[in-house]
Amino acid sequence: MPWFRNLIQISATTFKSQSSLKPIYTKPFVHPFTSQLLQFTTTTAAAADREKLPQEVKANTTRHAGLGPTKGDEKRRVVVLGSGWAGCRLIKDIDTKIYDVVCVSPRNHMVFTPLLASTCVGTLEFRSVAEPIGRIQPAISREPGSFYFLANSTGIDFHNHLVNCQTVTDGADTLEPWNFNIAYDKLVIAAGAEASTFGIKGVKEHAIFLREVHHAQEIRRKLLLNLMLSDVPGVSDEEKRRLLHCVVVGGGPTGVEFSGELSDFIMRDVRQRYAHAKDNIRVTLIEANEILSSFDDRLRVYATKQLIKSGVRLVRGIVKDVQPEKIVLSDGTDVPYGLLVWSTGVGPSPFVKSLDVPKSPGGRIGVDEWLRIPSVPDVFAIGDCCGFLESTGKPVLPALAQVAERQGKYLAKELNRIGKAGGGRANAATDIDLGAPFVYRHLGSMATIGRYKALVDLRQSKEAKGLSVAGFGSWFIWRSAYLTRVISWRNRFYVAINWLTTLIFGRDISRI
Amino acid sequence: MPWFRNLIQISATTFKSQSSLKPIYTKPFVHPFTSQLLQFTTTTAAAADREKLPQEVKANTTRHAGLGPTKGDEKRRVVVLGSGWAGCRLIKDIDTKIYDVVCVSPRNHMVFTPLLASTCVGTLEFRSVAEPIGRIQPAISREPGSFYFLANSTGIDFHNHLVNCQTVTDGADTLEPWNFNIAYDKLVIAAGAEASTFGIKGVKEHAIFLREVHHAQEIRRKLLLNLMLSDVPGVSDEEKRRLLHCVVVGGGPTGVEFSGELSDFIMRDVRQRYAHAKDNIRVTLIEANEILSSFDDRLRVYATKQLIKSGVRLVRGIVKDVQPEKIVLSDGTDVPYGLLVWSTGVGPSPFVKSLDVPKSPGGRIGVDEWLRIPSVPDVFAIGDCCGFLESTGKPVLPALAQVAERQGKYLAKELNRIGKAGGGRANAATDIDLGAPFVYRHLGSMATIGRYKALVDLRQSKEAKGLSVAGFGSWFIWRSAYLTRVISWRNRFYVAINWLTTLIFGRDISRI
Repeated sequence: MPWFRNLIQISATTFKSQSSLKPIYTKPFVHPFTSQLLQFTTTTAAAADREKLPQEVKANTTRHAGLGPTKGDEKRRVVVLGSGWAGCRLIKDIDTKIYDVVCVSPRNHMVFTPLLASTCVGTLEFRSVAEPIGRIQPAISREPGSFYFLANSTGIDFHNHLVNCQTVTDGADTLEPWNFNIAYDKLVIAAGAEASTFGIKGVKEHAIFLREVHHAQEIRRKLLLNLMLSDVPGVSDEEKRRLLHCVVVGGGPTGVEFSGELSDFIMRDVRQRYAHAKDNIRVTLIEANEILSSFDDRLRVYATKQLIKSGVRLVRGIVKDVQPEKIVLSDGTDVPYGLLVWSTGVGPSPFVKSLDVPKSPGGRIGVDEWLRIPSVPDVFAIGDCCGFLESTGKPVLPALAQVAERQGKYLAKELNRIGKAGGGRANAATDIDLGAPFVYRHLGSMATIGRYKALVDLRQSKEAKGLSVAGFGSWFIWRSAYLTRVISWRNRFYVAINWLTTLIFGRDISRI
Repeated sequence: MPWFRNLIQISATTFKSQSSLKPIYTKPFVHPFTSQLLQFTTTTAAAADREKLPQEVKANTTRHAGLGPTKGDEKRRVVVLGSGWAGCRLIKDIDTKIYDVVCVSPRNHMVFTPLLASTCVGTLEFRSVAEPIGRIQPAISREPGSFYFLANSTGIDFHNHLVNCQTVTDGADTLEPWNFNIAYDKLVIAAGAEASTFGIKGVKEHAIFLREVHHAQEIRRKLLLNLMLSDVPGVSDEEKRRLLHCVVVGGGPTGVEFSGELSDFIMRDVRQRYAHAKDNIRVTLIEANEILSSFDDRLRVYATKQLIKSGVRLVRGIVKDVQPEKIVLSDGTDVPYGLLVWSTGVGPSPFVKSLDVPKSPGGRIGVDEWLRIPSVPDVFAIGDCCGFLESTGKPVLPALAQVAERQGKYLAKELNRIGKAGGGRANAATDIDLGAPFVYRHLGSMATIGRYKALVDLRQSKEAKGLSVAGFGSWFIWRSAYLTRVISWRNRFYVAINWLTTLIFGRDISRI
């Protein structure tokens, strides 16, 4: 039997010592490429012994393996916490001949957030808006000293230039999360912000945010589930209306774009493919103030008209309570819903709150004009997690992709210059010229509001004069602009293909 | 404020009677299109009262709404249980001028199973292999009397021509599953089979099957998670080898194709994008007998050589026990694994076992040569859930997509003829000529075994003579053959685009 002759026995030697399959922290871990991996072991109890200790004692004696400080003429290490617009732009632009890059983030890709709303209804595929970090900066997967770690940062020891991390195991039952430390020469905090709930009860439990790909997946699954369930015999008309009522809270660009996409989906695809449901499905957008408040008045009026025309109901109201099947407004009105999407802006995350550094107005990490945290050396913050300190006299910038990306680009340049001038090592950049401070220039805002319509506001601020246009032309500009900004050619190609197939074949409605 | 003028108040009248938002079974449900929706209510207790009853009593008094029997000159109703190869082919070919089609299935799409293995490693996208039922048969979403119900069939009342169903709510916490009945004129059971575990402990808990899109998604997430976790400092070499050990149990076409795809992924993509992991990742294929036992000996030798060449370890062994981090073979060998894929064939599902009808050898639903269940009128079975009764003298056909699809095609034709001859109504087809019995002619088998290589066996049976080829030419035939068999143009297009981008840009590695 030829197959049998080729049989490779799984011998006892290949898989010896079965009893110690769990991560072992006592044996120093030898990295196949470099000797940078050191151990921060402080106790000597065997892993097996630790298992018997109660939880608290165990936590204290857990050894931390990790990446030790860079030495001699080794490349210096930039550690980046986060993989959003700010972190990924920095990772892309950093000079990997000067620095090793280590990225710590709970997701191994960047989300192209402006197109996320389109994925909820199948206009775009989920993968088309996700860009793997290894593709943004190939050195991360190729260079021996560069890494991406699927982990959360749990704390920072600024004094010893160390970041504490814990792996994200994401429900995999056979893996316990474990802790490790990373020594940094330069640290960039780009950990982002958290969706605001304003302390309203039930938001986290019952509403879906729209910030990550898995949120969009959840929205899509729920929307299709509700469409299908509403068709089942025995469902009362009232329950049917509830199931098919999609409520969006928050009239910012994300909320408006999602409402627009949803009404497109209803007008074009539901009527064709869920004919039985078409009379009961509705979209309501609830906003406490004005929708698209950062846009030009004229554009806002236009957006309002277009949204109403495509069937979106605009309601001014304040949400008081979120229950499993209804929300309660502050005037006592009950609004039953089948799908609730929450998009009311962002605030500081628990990690940012936990850091013992001066904060900007609004509770973000306070930075100076060079995006440094002034109180600690070699640490920078960019993106939604940071804001100018009051002492700089500058306002805290809005939590926009545009701001974050510009900050990442600026800081990469700054770090590259510092590295070239010999200041890459920890505590070595004290007397190096920092160059011009970071200045943000707003390039304009864009929002799509449904089928072939978009707003483009090219004014630099709300008060300034400048071009603001709306309509089909804007929609075309919007699509082209995004298409050229999606980072890889692969995703540019996929987004174009997705748009084309949606146009020809309609949106995909399989619930997978 | 123009926006404010357009404000539509959510008035109390729109959302009145909040207290009764749950499905109400007491009020007859009025269908907007037809009056076919009737109620099978037998008690009159109000829904509110039922809430107070203990669980068991409640179950007994739950009223069943549903679709009542067709009447007068209404179109007759074919109810199809399942949405696999057999059911979807039937749904596609049925004459919707004669029949209304009602499909009951826990998934709203058909999975193009031969390409499922490719989605696990990102060669193809998940959506490219899923075809929505509404696209296979547009009447389902357009015709007033045709439906797709997201539900499982829980039982059949053959005497009264009724199918009992329960909605699939899939973990949505706000929805209780509810029951309904559907009256049929013709019933087609195409509910498929279940993955065999041979009663081995731990398979269902720890192994992943490869039969649905969500299985492929789970495999991909776990594979990428393990790749990333193996990179974290502090993981011992042993644990790293375990995490990166992918074990496939079952050497049939699915197991072999998945092993081939996985080794391609490792050879091409892991080496480039997970350079740190490339020395520790391995694939082992465990099979108790011979791999690809249905193929020509010469092809089998070729496949074995190719698999070994691309790094797959072939092990002959019988799995005795599956534990969270290792499997135990019958000779006592422990095989630690990070990912375990189980693909050892299929057997009858609990639903099929529960049906009180004569069974074929092997426990499938027994059918005669016209695919009827002889003991009950107007009921047919097709696909993996059925087998010829011993009395027909024919062998039970293998559980192949090819068989299922051919049976669906045959039965659609048969039902169309019966319908045209006036036998569409329940109990009305007793004296109608059934035409030629179903005869299966095997067209040959195909399997891909990794990069640019495939086997094509065009013999009609194992003993017959005929063409059998292997290599690049076969790979080309394989790809072309599948490309033309993917059901919609949209998916044909997407599969071609996916293959092209994988060739140019490599596989997608974002873990979403």
